[in-house]
Amino acid sequence: MTINFALLGAGRIGKVHARAVTSNPDARLVAVADAFEAAATSIAKQYGCDIRTIDEIEATKDIDAVVICTPTNTHADLIERFARAGKAIFCEKPIDLSLARVKDCLKVVDETGARLMVGFNRRFDPHFAAVKQAIDAGHVGDVEMVQIVSRDPGAPPADYIRSSGGIFRDMTIHDFDMARFVLGEEPVTVAAAASVLTDPEIAGLGDFDSVSVILTTGSGKHATISNSRRATYGYDQRLEVHGSKGSVAIENQRPVSIEVANGDGYTRPPLHDFFMTRYTEAYAAEIAAFIAVILDGKAPSPDGRDGLLALALADAALRSVEQGRTVRVDEILN
Amino acid sequence: MTINFALLGAGRIGKVHARAVTSNPDARLVAVADAFEAAATSIAKQYGCDIRTIDEIEATKDIDAVVICTPTNTHADLIERFARAGKAIFCEKPIDLSLARVKDCLKVVDETGARLMVGFNRRFDPHFAAVKQAIDAGHVGDVEMVQIVSRDPGAPPADYIRSSGGIFRDMTIHDFDMARFVLGEEPVTVAAAASVLTDPEIAGLGDFDSVSVILTTGSGKHATISNSRRATYGYDQRLEVHGSKGSVAIENQRPVSIEVANGDGYTRPPLHDFFMTRYTEAYAAEIAAFIAVILDGKAPSPDGRDGLLALALADAALRSVEQGRTVRVDEILN
Amino acid sequence: MTINFALLGAGRIGKVHARAVTSNPDARLVAVADAFEAAATSIAKQYGCDIRTIDEIEATKDIDAVVICTPTNTHADLIERFARAGKAIFCEKPIDLSLARVKDCLKVVDETGARLMVGFNRRFDPHFAAVKQAIDAGHVGDVEMVQIVSRDPGAPPADYIRSSGGIFRDMTIHDFDMARFVLGEEPVTVAAAASVLTDPEIAGLGDFDSVSVILTTGSGKHATISNSRRATYGYDQRLEVHGSKGSVAIENQRPVSIEVANGDGYTRPPLHDFFMTRYTEAYAAEIAAFIAVILDGKAPSPDGRDGLLALALADAALRSVEQGRTVRVDEILN
Amino acid sequence: MTINFALLGAGRIGKVHARAVTSNPDARLVAVADAFEAAATSIAKQYGCDIRTIDEIEATKDIDAVVICTPTNTHADLIERFARAGKAIFCEKPIDLSLARVKDCLKVVDETGARLMVGFNRRFDPHFAAVKQAIDAGHVGDVEMVQIVSRDPGAPPADYIRSSGGIFRDMTIHDFDMARFVLGEEPVTVAAAASVLTDPEIAGLGDFDSVSVILTTGSGKHATISNSRRATYGYDQRLEVHGSKGSVAIENQRPVSIEVANGDGYTRPPLHDFFMTRYTEAYAAEIAAFIAVILDGKAPSPDGRDGLLALALADAALRSVEQGRTVRVDEILN
Repeated sequence: MTINFALLGAGRIGKVHARAVTSNPDARLVAVADAFEAAATSIAKQYGCDIRTIDEIEATKDIDAVVICTPTNTHADLIERFARAGKAIFCEKPIDLSLARVKDCLKVVDETGARLMVGFNRRFDPHFAAVKQAIDAGHVGDVEMVQIVSRDPGAPPADYIRSSGGIFRDMTIHDFDMARFVLGEEPVTVAAAASVLTDPEIAGLGDFDSVSVILTTGSGKHATISNSRRATYGYDQRLEVHGSKGSVAIENQRPVSIEVANGDGYTRPPLHDFFMTRYTEAYAAEIAAFIAVILDGKAPSPDGRDGLLALALADAALRSVEQGRTVRVDEILN
Repeated sequence: MTINFALLGAGRIGKVHARAVTSNPDARLVAVADAFEAAATSIAKQYGCDIRTIDEIEATKDIDAVVICTPTNTHADLIERFARAGKAIFCEKPIDLSLARVKDCLKVVDETGARLMVGFNRRFDPHFAAVKQAIDAGHVGDVEMVQIVSRDPGAPPADYIRSSGGIFRDMTIHDFDMARFVLGEEPVTVAAAASVLTDPEIAGLGDFDSVSVILTTGSGKHATISNSRRATYGYDQRLEVHGSKGSVAIENQRPVSIEVANGDGYTRPPLHDFFMTRYTEAYAAEIAAFIAVILDGKAPSPDGRDGLLALALADAALRSVEQGRTVRVDEILN
Repeated sequence: MTINFALLGAGRIGKVHARAVTSNPDARLVAVADAFEAAATSIAKQYGCDIRTIDEIEATKDIDAVVICTPTNTHADLIERFARAGKAIFCEKPIDLSLARVKDCLKVVDETGARLMVGFNRRFDPHFAAVKQAIDAGHVGDVEMVQIVSRDPGAPPADYIRSSGGIFRDMTIHDFDMARFVLGEEPVTVAAAASVLTDPEIAGLGDFDSVSVILTTGSGKHATISNSRRATYGYDQRLEVHGSKGSVAIENQRPVSIEVANGDGYTRPPLHDFFMTRYTEAYAAEIAAFIAVILDGKAPSPDGRDGLLALALADAALRSVEQGRTVRVDEILN
Repeated sequence: MTINFALLGAGRIGKVHARAVTSNPDARLVAVADAFEAAATSIAKQYGCDIRTIDEIEATKDIDAVVICTPTNTHADLIERFARAGKAIFCEKPIDLSLARVKDCLKVVDETGARLMVGFNRRFDPHFAAVKQAIDAGHVGDVEMVQIVSRDPGAPPADYIRSSGGIFRDMTIHDFDMARFVLGEEPVTVAAAASVLTDPEIAGLGDFDSVSVILTTGSGKHATISNSRRATYGYDQRLEVHGSKGSVAIENQRPVSIEVANGDGYTRPPLHDFFMTRYTEAYAAEIAAFIAVILDGKAPSPDGRDGLLALALADAALRSVEQGRTVRVDEILN
C-alpha cells in the first residue's frame, strides 16, 4: 500500500520533507499547499504533484497524511482540522509556543484518535539513534548523567528570533527532547542560566544566545545542556550518556574526513555548517518512521505529549532564569 | 539539457549506476539491457524505463550515453561499438584483462573521438577527492611517499575469482589508480609480494589474497600498497600522502559514529562492511562527473589511458611476484 | 642556589611531593615529619633525609620551604606557624574546610608577607596548561562558555568522605579552580544540583556522588561542571573552552595508546585509573613552579586567595542545592 | 641485591642510560668512562659516580654490568672484553656494521656464556609493548600482515650519516627488529626501494633518505616498512598488525593533547619532535628489563642474535636496492 501525502508549507523545511516523502518507496506526494505560490509551484514542478488549497486537501479522500511545515502559529489549528478530517499528521515542532494552546490541541487529537507525530528529527539521526539503542541494549547500565552540547554556527535573523519564542523554545527544545529520549525518566526540576554573549542585537530582542541548563529527574539523574548561537568550527551536536556500567557518546559529523599534518600540527576540516546537511539521513528516517506508524498501526513517537513536555521544560528553564531559582516542571504543567 | 542514458548490464553495480543516473537532475534513464530478463525488468519497473536489446540501444538516436556494467569480457567490444555509434561511454573497470586488447580498444576510441570514462569510483569519494584537493592546493608540498591500505571484509566467491584476472587486476587495480592519481608522476618500477593467508581455496584458483607492492616513479617517489581479502572490522580503505611540507590522510568511514566506554575500554563500531555503502556518494559523484564531461565538453577523467596504465601496473606486479624482481613498467607497456 | 625542603606529612600525597622535590635539580629534601613514624622512616630511607618534628623544622635555619601534606584540619595552623617562621609554604588544598578559618589564616599570611602556594595540581598538567596557553595566545578569542567534566573511577572510603567536607569541597573544588583559571573573570552566581546515584552509603554520610553546576560571571560567561564518583572506563578529566573565535579542549589520557579492531569494532584501552598516574607530570611541574616562586621572587599562583575563592564556590554550590536557588558568591564571601 | 653499573660512553645516549640506571631502585651507577673527559665529568658530577678508564672497569670486581654507548666501531671489541671479564653487557645497537664481525663477536659471547642484551629500545615502549601483548593474548589471531611507518623529523648531520652504515643499518634497523618482534616468524625474503627526496647532500654521501621495504616470511606473512628522514609534523612512529581475527595498531604520541577548533577546522599539536622525549619511558623500561635479566637469570631479549638478524635484513634490503630483485635472507646470512 502506498501512502498519499499532502505537504502544507513549501518553505525550507517543507522542501526537506518533500524530498523525504518522494524518495520513500511507500509514499507518494499528491499535493502541496503554500500561501506563497512560487514556493508551491517549485515543489509541484520538481515532484510532479498538484497544487491545492488547504481546504481542498482537507476535503479530499485521496490524501492519507499531511506534513505540516507552515508557520508555527498555524500548527495547532491545522492539527485540529486534519485530526477531525481523519488524516495522519506529521507536524514540525513546536505544536505551539503556548503550553495552554498545545494542551487544547492535544485534547482534540485524543478525542479524534488521530495519529500525530511531532518532528524532533534528531531522534532519527543514525548516531543519536545508536546511542539510544546502546542504552536500550544495556551497554551503559542504568542511566545516571547526560550531557548535551548544541552549538549553532550562527544566530538566525532577527525576524526569525522575534517569532521563535526564544532560544529555549526554539533551539534548546531539541535538547530537552533528547534529554527525555535518553534519560528514561521524566525531568522534575530545571535550573538554567542564560546570557547574551555573541550579539547585543539579540538582547534587544529580549532573547539569549548562550544558555546552560541542569535537569534532574525524580530519582536524581541529571542532564546538563549547553547551547550557544556561535560555533566557528561548524554545527556542533554532541551527546554523552553515563550509566552504572559505562558511557556512550556520539562524535560530531564532518562532510569530509581527512587530516592534514605539518609543522602546525594535525588538522581536520570543520564540521557540517548547517542542520540540513548534518541531518539529511535523519529527515529521511523520520518520514520513514511516520509511514511505518500509518502502515503498521504503531503508536507515533515522538507524539504530541512529547511535544508538550519539551515545551514545558523550555518554559521552566525560562522561569528559572527569570526568577533565579530551580523550577519544578509540575509548576509549569499544572 | 537532459542526457538520455542506457544502462548495459543490470547486475549489482548496474543497479548502483541506475540509482545514480536517475537521481541526477541532468540525466534520464531511458533504457536498460540485460541478458538476464528478470534483472532488466527489475530496473525498468523501479525507474520507469524501457527494456531494449543492445542492438536497439546502439541503433536509436534518443540515447546520448551508455553505462557499461556487463561482464568484463564484453567491455572492450561494447566500448568499440558505442564509440562508433557516437555515444558517450562510461565503462566499469577494467576495460579488459588483456593489455593488448585494451590498447586495440583505445585505438578505436581515439579514432572515433568518443568520450570514454572509466569507473575508478574512489577518485570521486569526497574523502579521497579531498586528499587530492589538499595536494593540488599545495598543503603537503611536493609529494614524496604515498601509502595505501585496502582490505576487504572477505574474499569474493570462487567463481568470481576465476574470471577476475586475479587480485592485482581486480582489487589492487583501484590502488594502482589511486597511487597514480596522487603521485603526480608515473610509476616506472614495481616490486611486489603475494601470498595466500586467508583461504587455501584461493591458492587452488591460482590467485592470492594478501599482497604488498612498492611503486617508484622516475624521480624516486614511492607508493606502497597493502591489500588483504580479510578485514574482520569492516571495509578498510586508507590513503596517506607525505610531501615536502606535510602529509594528508583520509580516515576510515563507519555508518555509525558512537563510542561506548566501560571497563574494557573505549569502543567504536566497525567500519562499513561493503563497498556499496562505503562509496554511495562516490558513485553519485562519478556519474555527475561523467554528465559534466558530456555537457561541458571537458576531457573525461579517469579515461581509457588511466584504465590502461592501472592494468599495466597490475601486470607488472604479477610479473614481479613470478620472477622475484623489480619490474620496469615499460617492459609491460611496450 | 638549592632550596632546602621539609615535608610535613608522609602519606600518599606526601610521597608524591617527596619524589617531585628530590628529582628537581634546584631542590633538596632535608627533613620529613610525620606523626606516624613508619611513614616518615620510609621517606627518610628512600631519599636520605632526616626525620624531624614539626617544632624542629620550624626552629631550624637550614629549611627554606615546607610542603604541607598533613590532614586538612591542621593546614591552617601550620600555614600560620610557618608563615611566621619565614618559610616559603606549599600547602595541599584545601587550606581549611571553613571559609572563616581560611580568611583568618590568609590574614596571617598577608601580615607576614609569606609566600604561600596552594596545591591545585591540575593547573600544571601539560594538557590543562596548554589550554590556558591557547586562551592566553588568543586562539579562542574572548572566552564565553566553559565545560568541565571530572569523573572519578570510584568513591573514596567512607572514612575519607566523613572528613572531606563533602564532594563540592573535596572533588568539585578542583573544577571550581579550573573554571576560574580559564574563565578570565570571577564567577558571581552558582546554581547546582546534587544526587546520590552510585552508592546509598554516601547518602548516609550526608554527601552526594553526582553533581552538576552552572557558574556565571559578571559579564554572563558560563561554566558548567559535571562530576561523578563513578567512571568505569577510568579517570575522566576533561575541559573545553569556547570563545568568540573558536574552542580548545583537552583529550583524556590513557597509559597505553593502542587500538584493537575486530568484528566488535575498534577498541582503545581504558584511561588512567588513578589521579597519581594521571597527574605525574603535573605534580613535578607544580613543585618546579613553587621553586621558581622562591628563586625568582614571583608571586605564587595559585595562592591563598585562589584557595579561598574555590572554597567559596563550593559553599555556594552546596547552598544552591540546599535552597533550590541560584546563589550569589558574595552572599558567601561577605 | 643492587646491581653495580659502569657506563661506557657518556654522550647523548649515554646520558639517557645514566638516568635510567640511577633512577632504578635495583641499580647503582658506580663508574663512567669516556675518552672525552668533560662528558665523563658531567655524568660523574650529576650522579656522584667515579670516573674510570675502561681498563679499570674491566679489572674491578665491584662492577656487575656495563652499558656500552661508545662509537659503533668499538662495540664488538668491548662486548668481547667484557664478556671475558664476566660482566653482564647492555650494548646499544648495532653490534657492528659488518655482519662477519658481529658473528665473530657473538661466538665469544656464546663461549663465555655472557649475558648480552642489545638496545632495541622500541620493544620496551609501553605502546609497542602493548601491541606485542595484544598479539600474544590472541586478540588478532594469527598474524598475517604488518605495517610499520617510521619518519624522522629530519636527517642527522652529514658526519653522522658518513659513519652510520646508511639508512637501512641506522634507521630501518629498528623497524626490521620491530617486524621480527611482532611477525612471530623469521622474514626470508626482502624487496626494497630507496631514494633521495629530501636533501641531495645525502645522495652525495652514498645514502638514501626515503625507503620502502617488503619482508616476507616462510609461510607468506608480509611486513612493509616505510621510512623517511622528513616529517614536518614530528616524530612519526607507527605500527599496525593484522591477523586472522583482527588488528592492533599504536597511535602516535604527542607531548600535549589538546585540540583547537575554529573556522579552519580542528587542530591538534605536532608529535614529539625527538626520539629521546618520545621514548623516555622505553629507555627506563629497557634498563629495568636488563636488570631483571641479571637478577632473575632470564635469557636476555633482545639478544645478540636479534642484533645479528636485524642487521642481516638491512644488508638484504641494500642488496635488493642495488640489484633490483627480491633477496633471500639466507644469501646474506650464510
